[in-house]
Amino acid sequence: MTASTAQDAVTAGFIVIGDEILSGRTKDTNTGFLADYLTAIGIDLSEVRVVPDETDRIVEAVNALRERYTYVFTSGGIGPTHDDITADSIAAAFGVTIDVDPRARAILEAHYPPGGLTAARLRMARIPAGADLIDNPVSKAPGFRIGNVHVMAGVPSIMQAMVDAIAPTLKTGRKMLSRHVDADIPESRLAERIGEIQAKFPETLIGSYPRTSDGRFTTQIVIRARDEDILEQATAAVQDAVSITLA
Amino acid sequence: MTASTAQDAVTAGFIVIGDEILSGRTKDTNTGFLADYLTAIGIDLSEVRVVPDETDRIVEAVNALRERYTYVFTSGGIGPTHDDITADSIAAAFGVTIDVDPRARAILEAHYPPGGLTAARLRMARIPAGADLIDNPVSKAPGFRIGNVHVMAGVPSIMQAMVDAIAPTLKTGRKMLSRHVDADIPESRLAERIGEIQAKFPETLIGSYPRTSDGRFTTQIVIRARDEDILEQATAAVQDAVSITLA
Repeated sequence: MTASTAQDAVTAGFIVIGDEILSGRTKDTNTGFLADYLTAIGIDLSEVRVVPDETDRIVEAVNALRERYTYVFTSGGIGPTHDDITADSIAAAFGVTIDVDPRARAILEAHYPPGGLTAARLRMARIPAGADLIDNPVSKAPGFRIGNVHVMAGVPSIMQAMVDAIAPTLKTGRKMLSRHVDADIPESRLAERIGEIQAKFPETLIGSYPRTSDGRFTTQIVIRARDEDILEQATAAVQDAVSITLA
Repeated sequence: MTASTAQDAVTAGFIVIGDEILSGRTKDTNTGFLADYLTAIGIDLSEVRVVPDETDRIVEAVNALRERYTYVFTSGGIGPTHDDITADSIAAAFGVTIDVDPRARAILEAHYPPGGLTAARLRMARIPAGADLIDNPVSKAPGFRIGNVHVMAGVPSIMQAMVDAIAPTLKTGRKMLSRHVDADIPESRLAERIGEIQAKFPETLIGSYPRTSDGRFTTQIVIRARDEDILEQATAAVQDAVSITLA
């Protein structure tokens, strides 16, 4: 059992939905935001998938991940246009119906000027049966939660506001703590000693990350654990290993 | 059949391997780089997965994606440290043996000073049986190709050099061309007309991407097709739709 599969861990999968990420036209920043956020509140992000705007592909990813993790989050595809098929795909994944939701409709009616709730905009009120709405303080059209799946917008500012809205409702695990040690040495010179430290402290996750700066190879060693004492012991051992290697 | 599954399409899946991406400590930029690169040479990136440094998870992702796409690319986990388990995981996925490869060993021996090829560094010469090496002009330790799977380093500068090295060996498809139309209108006002244009030009992929700038909602419509004439016709139709909506 690794630290990331510990019994007290709360896990998550994230599905980024959108052709624009896969074509390179838009660079995904939602993964980095969500990874930082979940780590900070004690939820382990365990897998990310980026899938195109295709129903079958969305259904497959949602069903694979919702079985496996405590929570699933999605971003993208809940706008008013023809390529926004996330809500319908989530309904298909759960085998439930989908229609214009009176609560969502009321939010949009209040937001647009009289007569402004066009057929296209009303698409944004389509919510799978049994889902709860997720508040969107930025542009009003809501996200939703069904089962353990949280469906959010792809626009980063809206997605971030939605994460803030749902965070208080999430069960969080014992927080994964981390320390890092920067070493002005290529990682190959540290590898053996760090491997021994990992073996000695199985409750930690020790990562070694090579970097290049000014053409030189340096290493950042990251030590993660849920227990503060063990974390400090392992970190001290890594610091000693770096000192010995440099000496 | 959508444009992305056209018979002349060459497809790819990308697997980002590394706990540091999932914890948020490192922000992935390899996906954006590879997406741009593959689009430019006529290969459709169809799926991305980010998985932790765990053998079972790497094996599962590699086997799922190599069946499905023309090519699979991976980044991360081929360094000298204990948490670099990608090569062994790829061997497991293909059911082949893995050992120190004489070609890879020779590259490393030539690179390090006499006696410098430690046990840890020699780990970087572990290559699955039957694989070809991928040149690493940056830090020498090679990547490798086995079947349709290309295994590369996670450090962006090295990964990019490896992509350059393998690109000439890849079969490329008929290039997906794209145009975009910027509209100073929220996408909900354009949605119906754009949906009609998508229906009229089934050989295109039309995406509508909402943006916020200075607190205003604007839209970028992206039209993609492999045929230049169809692309121009659909783009003209989108420009007309924007003009009509603004009028």
